[in-house]
Amino acid sequence: MVMKVHGAVLSTAAMRVFATLYEKDLEFEFVPVDMGAGEHKQERFLALNPFGQVPFFEDGDLKLFESRAITKYIAHQYKDKGTQLVCEGKPMATVSMWMEVEAHQFDPVASKLQWEIVYKPMFGMATDAAVVEENEAKLAKVLDVYEARLSQSKYLGCDCFTLADLHHQPALTNLMGTQVKKLFDARPKVSAWVADIMARPALAKVLAMRNQK
Amino acid sequence: MVMKVHGAVLSTAAMRVFATLYEKDLEFEFVPVDMGAGEHKQERFLALNPFGQVPFFEDGDLKLFESRAITKYIAHQYKDKGTQLVCEGKPMATVSMWMEVEAHQFDPVASKLQWEIVYKPMFGMATDAAVVEENEAKLAKVLDVYEARLSQSKYLGCDCFTLADLHHQPALTNLMGTQVKKLFDARPKVSAWVADIMARPALAKVLAMRNQK
Repeated sequence: MVMKVHGAVLSTAAMRVFATLYEKDLEFEFVPVDMGAGEHKQERFLALNPFGQVPFFEDGDLKLFESRAITKYIAHQYKDKGTQLVCEGKPMATVSMWMEVEAHQFDPVASKLQWEIVYKPMFGMATDAAVVEENEAKLAKVLDVYEARLSQSKYLGCDCFTLADLHHQPALTNLMGTQVKKLFDARPKVSAWVADIMARPALAKVLAMRNQK
Repeated sequence: MVMKVHGAVLSTAAMRVFATLYEKDLEFEFVPVDMGAGEHKQERFLALNPFGQVPFFEDGDLKLFESRAITKYIAHQYKDKGTQLVCEGKPMATVSMWMEVEAHQFDPVASKLQWEIVYKPMFGMATDAAVVEENEAKLAKVLDVYEARLSQSKYLGCDCFTLADLHHQPALTNLMGTQVKKLFDARPKVSAWVADIMARPALAKVLAMRNQK
């Protein structure tokens, strides 16, 4: 039975899962959830994920929500397929640490910036310049840490591309088209890392899904 | 070489690591960081964790920050010691999903409530009643999901106590002494789960560390 991903092509969380599946060369069925119509907050979807968030994932009997739990499952369960996105033992502990850094240091700030600069204008709402300024300052500090890390290691988790890098792709897809790009460009190692991870064919396949709607 | 945890006994993130080490019956050295004096924001500590947060963890050559990466490392690396806090394969995917739920659904709300009700008064600051009300409503919704889950499963991740439960202990330690307790008490399965996980001897050892200062 083929894996299923219930989600939306513009959802950054769903994009993480699509990118992982394409990196692993795994077949999957995309089940669109019409978030514009609020389908993710309706009873039928809440029975799948009571928190009302995409993506929802099925692999036979296994049903999962929370994008980072899904990508970890896929990477470990199908470790012999496609790109090796995780490793074992002590090196995995370091990869895991940088995955937590993405989730707790990068993503909260990147999400606020995406909301203000990308999504609010899309919904006809006004961007709050003070929130943007505050979060650009926070992002700059996070990227200083990334610059130091990427001076020692080709990728965040280790010398190979892993989930620690991949989890950043959706936010970067949104932010690199905005004024925030300057914060990445100002840091040579970060800038090279962004160029590298944004050029991955698997990500191109995720972005191509947007044209297939 | 014995493992080292740099942290503070009142830090909820450090408590997660201490609780894990006690559950695993592992010896460790506690290196106190004087957060009141801002030691975690000073150069010496920033060289260990550039984000300036406790805990920082050492196991020989391996150096880690981010509490949830540390607990996962300990649970996997020392899987044959003490309490089995993780498992393998598909059951682990479900445990991992509930760990993400703690990190992304429970903790942001619980942290705001702890800040308003526990820490602000401690620092002589005024609690913002509107923020408390908003976050109590959010917590109630999260606990409704927990009540449904705990009606099907003894613990959040599976029928055994795992990291998915343990990661909640520090916030619960703070919140169960406040007005927020009523939200847990109102839900029988949640209430029984809280009583169970708060009675673990490993947690008692963590709390006893506060008296050894």
